[in-house]
Amino acid sequence: MGEAQVSLKHLFRVFTKPEHKDSKLAQIEQHLSDNIMDFLSQHVVTKKTSLEEIEQDFSLPAVPESPEFVSSHAESLLEKLVAHSVNTYSPTFIGHMTSALPYFHLPLSKLLVGLNQNLVKIETSKAFTPLERQVLGMMHNLIYDRDEPFYEEYLHSARHALGAFCSGGTIANITALWVARNKLLGPQPGFSGVARAGLAAAYRHYDIGNLGVICSKRGHYSLSKAVDALGLGREQLLSLPCPAQTLNPEDALREGRRYQEAGNKVLAIVGIGGTTETGHVDPLDELADVAKELGCWFHVDAAWGGATLFSSNNRSKLNGIAKADSVTIDAHKQMYVPMGAGMAIFKDPEDANAVRHHAQYILREGSKDLGATTLEGSRNGMAMMVYSTLHILGRRGYELIIDQNIEKAQSFASMIDAHEDFALTTTPTLSLLTYRVCPPQVQKALSVAGDADKVRLNQKVDRLVVGVQKAQREAGKSFVSRTRLECPNTNSQAITVFRVVLANPLTTKTDLQNILAEQVELAKGMRIWKELIKLADQVSHTSASV
Amino acid sequence: MGEAQVSLKHLFRVFTKPEHKDSKLAQIEQHLSDNIMDFLSQHVVTKKTSLEEIEQDFSLPAVPESPEFVSSHAESLLEKLVAHSVNTYSPTFIGHMTSALPYFHLPLSKLLVGLNQNLVKIETSKAFTPLERQVLGMMHNLIYDRDEPFYEEYLHSARHALGAFCSGGTIANITALWVARNKLLGPQPGFSGVARAGLAAAYRHYDIGNLGVICSKRGHYSLSKAVDALGLGREQLLSLPCPAQTLNPEDALREGRRYQEAGNKVLAIVGIGGTTETGHVDPLDELADVAKELGCWFHVDAAWGGATLFSSNNRSKLNGIAKADSVTIDAHKQMYVPMGAGMAIFKDPEDANAVRHHAQYILREGSKDLGATTLEGSRNGMAMMVYSTLHILGRRGYELIIDQNIEKAQSFASMIDAHEDFALTTTPTLSLLTYRVCPPQVQKALSVAGDADKVRLNQKVDRLVVGVQKAQREAGKSFVSRTRLECPNTNSQAITVFRVVLANPLTTKTDLQNILAEQVELAKGMRIWKELIKLADQVSHTSASV
Repeated sequence: MGEAQVSLKHLFRVFTKPEHKDSKLAQIEQHLSDNIMDFLSQHVVTKKTSLEEIEQDFSLPAVPESPEFVSSHAESLLEKLVAHSVNTYSPTFIGHMTSALPYFHLPLSKLLVGLNQNLVKIETSKAFTPLERQVLGMMHNLIYDRDEPFYEEYLHSARHALGAFCSGGTIANITALWVARNKLLGPQPGFSGVARAGLAAAYRHYDIGNLGVICSKRGHYSLSKAVDALGLGREQLLSLPCPAQTLNPEDALREGRRYQEAGNKVLAIVGIGGTTETGHVDPLDELADVAKELGCWFHVDAAWGGATLFSSNNRSKLNGIAKADSVTIDAHKQMYVPMGAGMAIFKDPEDANAVRHHAQYILREGSKDLGATTLEGSRNGMAMMVYSTLHILGRRGYELIIDQNIEKAQSFASMIDAHEDFALTTTPTLSLLTYRVCPPQVQKALSVAGDADKVRLNQKVDRLVVGVQKAQREAGKSFVSRTRLECPNTNSQAITVFRVVLANPLTTKTDLQNILAEQVELAKGMRIWKELIKLADQVSHTSASV
Repeated sequence: MGEAQVSLKHLFRVFTKPEHKDSKLAQIEQHLSDNIMDFLSQHVVTKKTSLEEIEQDFSLPAVPESPEFVSSHAESLLEKLVAHSVNTYSPTFIGHMTSALPYFHLPLSKLLVGLNQNLVKIETSKAFTPLERQVLGMMHNLIYDRDEPFYEEYLHSARHALGAFCSGGTIANITALWVARNKLLGPQPGFSGVARAGLAAAYRHYDIGNLGVICSKRGHYSLSKAVDALGLGREQLLSLPCPAQTLNPEDALREGRRYQEAGNKVLAIVGIGGTTETGHVDPLDELADVAKELGCWFHVDAAWGGATLFSSNNRSKLNGIAKADSVTIDAHKQMYVPMGAGMAIFKDPEDANAVRHHAQYILREGSKDLGATTLEGSRNGMAMMVYSTLHILGRRGYELIIDQNIEKAQSFASMIDAHEDFALTTTPTLSLLTYRVCPPQVQKALSVAGDADKVRLNQKVDRLVVGVQKAQREAGKSFVSRTRLECPNTNSQAITVFRVVLANPLTTKTDLQNILAEQVELAKGMRIWKELIKLADQVSHTSASV
């Protein structure tokens, strides 16, 4: 490992002299530009390396004393980091919401870092501020479709905001509920409002026992972080059972009434526009009515599914979203932008004022500084990536991709349905589905078994699914994730299922067939497969003799 | 503007085919790589363009219907966005905390986006997880300097965290106070803790009227966001006057006692390790003792100044920081990493558990998924940029830069002091200072004037400073920022001052001389300059005759 000379001259070089064209880092860059798939398949090692082994390379706590040459550092990055990272571009990496990205993001990322704007204030971002406001306006328009005068008035208004650009969906959800909380418990004669006086004083002033948020059990973990951070408490996240994977409006109404009759107040109902685990969409239109009935905020977490609005063919799946007071959309999910681009969109441009902050040297009163109404302060110019992708793909481009994702999920569902060794556990509304590997004998036995036997069988299948998922991940050719779900036909028993996200445009039917074939092979090689068949035979026999 | 064909084939191209070497985007990229300063000075327009004019280019709220060719989009980015962005690399852009970055960040940013890892969980980040943990460990080590066994035990422990990587310092400060709040109001027999039961219930259980945070008036606006979001209320941010720019420990103790005797509880004292406005460092060692005395958390916001710890010569300026329960450091400030790299570091590896969250499909109990103890969920791999810079510069490299920044600020202060038309308002502790332009006659008059005349004179000088700052910004050659401060010799009157940050290694003494020369020229060309001299003469005359 080369030790670079420590001198001001040397240090000036890293600020003023580009990397030599033949340097290691320049080679890496060139390879990425020429063929990213090839770069990744050449450098990301697929053989099993345990996390503990990888940790060995990252275990020294001391800041390195002496400078290192850029090229030798680049070598070490390839060996230690790139080799053991995850190939998210791979068409067979279908377990999570990260996928291949359009090529133009590579050069754009350089422009982003080269400009290194700070969007907290205009003085360090200038044109990026109106650009970000336009991006938020476009998303607002996509959801709420207001008329031209509306956007003329509000898009660039210093006293309004159509949304908040965030590092991700979690901050977007927190921001939305923060706005809702501060608006509900706002200033009144004799009370300065929750933002100033705090939550305990607000509960006393408004005579509220507790403030709660209603969602289904499929609500994202960020909601739990939100009610904790905002001071409501996690026990006030009223997450209702949803064996059908969506929040039942009647259940929500009943729970909301019960809660409010007990001296509490429902802050918000959160409808999900594409659950993280199964891609289901809550009945947004009806939930909006329930929220109205309860007199509370209606937030839609469409971090995943929001991009469905680009598709004329599929946007009706989000019917009712325009009734939401706020909507979360992640551009780094189905908008194919690199990690770090969440957005909270507000129906009413006044609402963001509930969290407005000013300071002396920036965010001055009357300025258009974006940091005045965002939870974050200094932020980078990720909005440019969203802006560029909106232009380069266009609505029709997004439509094609979104439609294709949904069709791919549907055809994968058909494949699974047709395969005797698999059982589909949830069908795709958007581009997600869940299923499990399960010997046909077990599937048959489950259809006749009594409750106790069902539980026993399902628990064994759970172990099979976990085993296959881990083995497949470790083999390194493909990756599906897993989760635990209650399903309509498993009573209230949660079962472990494979979870796939069909978002990579490069994934083909053949890839999907291969993934299933590998899973069957892995499953049949496990001892538990035989144990399961034996148990199924016993159960079927007992049931038949009853 | 070219309209690209909407077809799956076209869309596949953007995911699978790199930009042609002669394309506009490739040219931009090449220019950036070859000479970023030249790229910026060629494309960033310096002539005055009003924000309203720029907004015209970003005013359409409709998502573009049809795809656009990448090259024509790149042209439009140059014209509309790059032309009107801020040249943060410029050696004469010394008004804020963004500066030139080392060259290697350009290719690294491509690697970051090419890998597009999601650090919320190991399944989508693998080696990035131990890498991020190591970076947090290095910063922990830099602050707390614990022994080897400590880091062996905790650096990669699934049940501990040495810190939280964040999008920026605001989230880091919020995270630190969130941890402090949840730890203080933790579970007890008969009470499930604030995280579960909420803040109002916690106040009742612990018999607390209000929970407050003590800091100086120079506390960053993020603290105000934090106490709002966390439910304490902005009125409970007890920001104490600090004419000397630092928090007086005796004042803090007195205020803390008064507050607690009134039935409240001090959650935390926040000491500042380099204020955003003047770069002053609070007396951390003594404030740590006050926090102990009050029985509260001690947080140090060293977003700016934390990097001073790299310098053996200057690290004593942060004496006492090792007594902090938590510390915020922004790598995108004096660690020369692109925007988006904040960190909250915790002295006690157990503390992050106060905000630990789990979910079924990720962040499972016992996993090392980073998202379990961060406020954010999905996050990008910015930690790699910090890791690489730590290695490529090394501690000694950082030391040279930090020392140089401080020396540069000191020599700028001498320049200002020696110039008859300027008055230094705060001297540099770190690399920030403030000053104002002020005719010598006025400086003389201020030294003899009575209180009422002082106020009149200062108000007029304020207008001069604002005028010069705006005119200089609009002229586009250089940029200093401005703020309002109380200073020891202005009683409690706040005055407007220029604020400069000497963090760009490319800034020379000549640049600084030129900035002063331009300011004098601008000031003397303003009508208010003459008015001021006239008023000063009157005041001096009156004072002399009294």
